[in-house]
Amino acid sequence: MEDNEDLRTGPQSTMRRKAGRGTRDRAQINAVIDEALLCHVAFVENDWPVVIPATPWRDGTHVYFHGALHGRLIRVIAAGQPVSVSFAFVDSLILAGSAMAHSNDFRSVVLFGRGEAVTEPAEKRRVLDLLLEKLSPGRSAQVRPPTEAELGVTGVVRLAIEEGNAKLRDLPPVEEEGDAPWPAWIGRVPLRLTAGPFEAVGERSRHLPEPRLPAWLPRQPG
Amino acid sequence: MEDNEDLRTGPQSTMRRKAGRGTRDRAQINAVIDEALLCHVAFVENDWPVVIPATPWRDGTHVYFHGALHGRLIRVIAAGQPVSVSFAFVDSLILAGSAMAHSNDFRSVVLFGRGEAVTEPAEKRRVLDLLLEKLSPGRSAQVRPPTEAELGVTGVVRLAIEEGNAKLRDLPPVEEEGDAPWPAWIGRVPLRLTAGPFEAVGERSRHLPEPRLPAWLPRQPG
Repeated sequence: MEDNEDLRTGPQSTMRRKAGRGTRDRAQINAVIDEALLCHVAFVENDWPVVIPATPWRDGTHVYFHGALHGRLIRVIAAGQPVSVSFAFVDSLILAGSAMAHSNDFRSVVLFGRGEAVTEPAEKRRVLDLLLEKLSPGRSAQVRPPTEAELGVTGVVRLAIEEGNAKLRDLPPVEEEGDAPWPAWIGRVPLRLTAGPFEAVGERSRHLPEPRLPAWLPRQPG
Repeated sequence: MEDNEDLRTGPQSTMRRKAGRGTRDRAQINAVIDEALLCHVAFVENDWPVVIPATPWRDGTHVYFHGALHGRLIRVIAAGQPVSVSFAFVDSLILAGSAMAHSNDFRSVVLFGRGEAVTEPAEKRRVLDLLLEKLSPGRSAQVRPPTEAELGVTGVVRLAIEEGNAKLRDLPPVEEEGDAPWPAWIGRVPLRLTAGPFEAVGERSRHLPEPRLPAWLPRQPG
């Protein structure tokens, strides 16, 4: 699948409710994955659903995960078991005049598929560098690179961004007629993940330039 | 289960990796759920795992969800199908001197169980008010309350906070000997969800007091 193709829907991913909020636009979907410090991976084990948090990053049309080589997340995805992965942000609280009209602005992507292991050491190292670059641009050139032993105990897996669905909401609340007698402020409260004051460790770090952060992670002013 | 009892582990929830990071302390688990604007609910459908985002809130020993009465989330939980629910935060980026020592401070709770519907209208209304109070303390007394018709089309379900596991990491990076030649700033970048400038809708809201936010959602200074 080319990078500019839309996401495919399948039996699991047909939008059922509020279909008008759906998007299959690849750029919007990539942006959600690229800003996610966390996603949630679900699989089936002994007929039970299991969902666990994971750190995702993207290269082209695949989302990557890493972890202990024999950990559950890596084992399940490397084995090609069916997985579902959810990425979501609440972008604002929508405070309406009536209780039931409250809502959130959000962006959400759910993927379905079967993943695979990344086993070639040079490729593992290349994509692990991309994770560092996601968290702090330029960082992969500043840190001690992985040793062969470190790469050997680290599992890297990937899933094609191919089937799934994405939804977003970006709408202010509306005043309704019946709201007028009630003393409720109506409006939007924008939410943003922000970085607080950096906490350097070690004397040496105090004299080194502070790390860069990605554009989607602003520092708190002051 | 009493509110001060620890979380029970079961076949799905035995901690497998880094068990030392686990906690079953009820107060820590409740705090994670109480701060979560989003969680991720997984279930099994046609032998596939499906994970979808949801807005959780808590009353005592149960976590609640709401949605369209005939929506998938409500149907699945109301039917008592096995579900797994994940709540997670990244609290800081841990920037280490070596690539593979990078990490996150995080808090994570994963629950397992079978839920149930809340059908009694007065109880539905009571717990929906708690969701408003979670997002903005005092708000349930300020807004137009739900009508019978609105309550009728809204599904409310709950899951006992009984079986599962929780993990947290709260540790600065350590300088290792091999890191010294590399020019990498080492330290912690604290992350926080913050509220930006409120966007009032309608002339009336400009003259009403702004809504309160919960203590875990600070406003950006300035």
